[in-house]
Amino acid sequence: MTSTSATSRDLPHPAPEEIRLEGVLHALSDPLRLQIVRELAARGDELSCSDFDVPVTKSTTTHHFRVLRESGVIRQVYRGTAKMNGLRKDDLDDLFPGLLDSLLAAAGRQAVRLGDSA
Amino acid sequence: MTSTSATSRDLPHPAPEEIRLEGVLHALSDPLRLQIVRELAARGDELSCSDFDVPVTKSTTTHHFRVLRESGVIRQVYRGTAKMNGLRKDDLDDLFPGLLDSLLAAAGRQAVRLGDSA
Repeated sequence: MTSTSATSRDLPHPAPEEIRLEGVLHALSDPLRLQIVRELAARGDELSCSDFDVPVTKSTTTHHFRVLRESGVIRQVYRGTAKMNGLRKDDLDDLFPGLLDSLLAAAGRQAVRLGDSA
Repeated sequence: MTSTSATSRDLPHPAPEEIRLEGVLHALSDPLRLQIVRELAARGDELSCSDFDVPVTKSTTTHHFRVLRESGVIRQVYRGTAKMNGLRKDDLDDLFPGLLDSLLAAAGRQAVRLGDSA
């Protein structure tokens, strides 16, 4: 993930060594945030906040993205007027090898079990 | 995990199909609860609440064990006068294969990185 084209409106992110497992798990303990992470992982690329079809208000969505960013799960970068979101997969894989894949597999398995469409 | 010698004071537990990934992650998003789970995993057997050396009051400890029980992470059974705690490893492994081991590995790796003794 590069910030080459980011503007000066950069948002604060934890450095890799500041990321804590407890914070990552808290970030993923909300169904909507877990869904956002699943979509980012499936896409394998950045998505803008408006690319997500979520059944909550814009301010609630903003809150959820902020929790994901502050825990180190996603990186948010302004590109022009769009706030783009990407999984910090490399950082998470370095810190906790295999964990993100396990979490995504567990989430996918649960979605199938509960009959969720996503 | 058998409840053969449990008394009638059984505590409510979610059935396996009621366990949710989000609830498990929430339960493990607290440092003290994560530590309790690591100790249970390392021991591989039941432990009583008083076997844990935690720097919080008894009522706080009780709260943390209840969160772990209600999320499906541990099973709590009265044996005589002792409330015994055991990881629901089989249930979790059935629902989310590999997840618990990944989480424990991540927690162990972080403990080493941060210089925690446990």
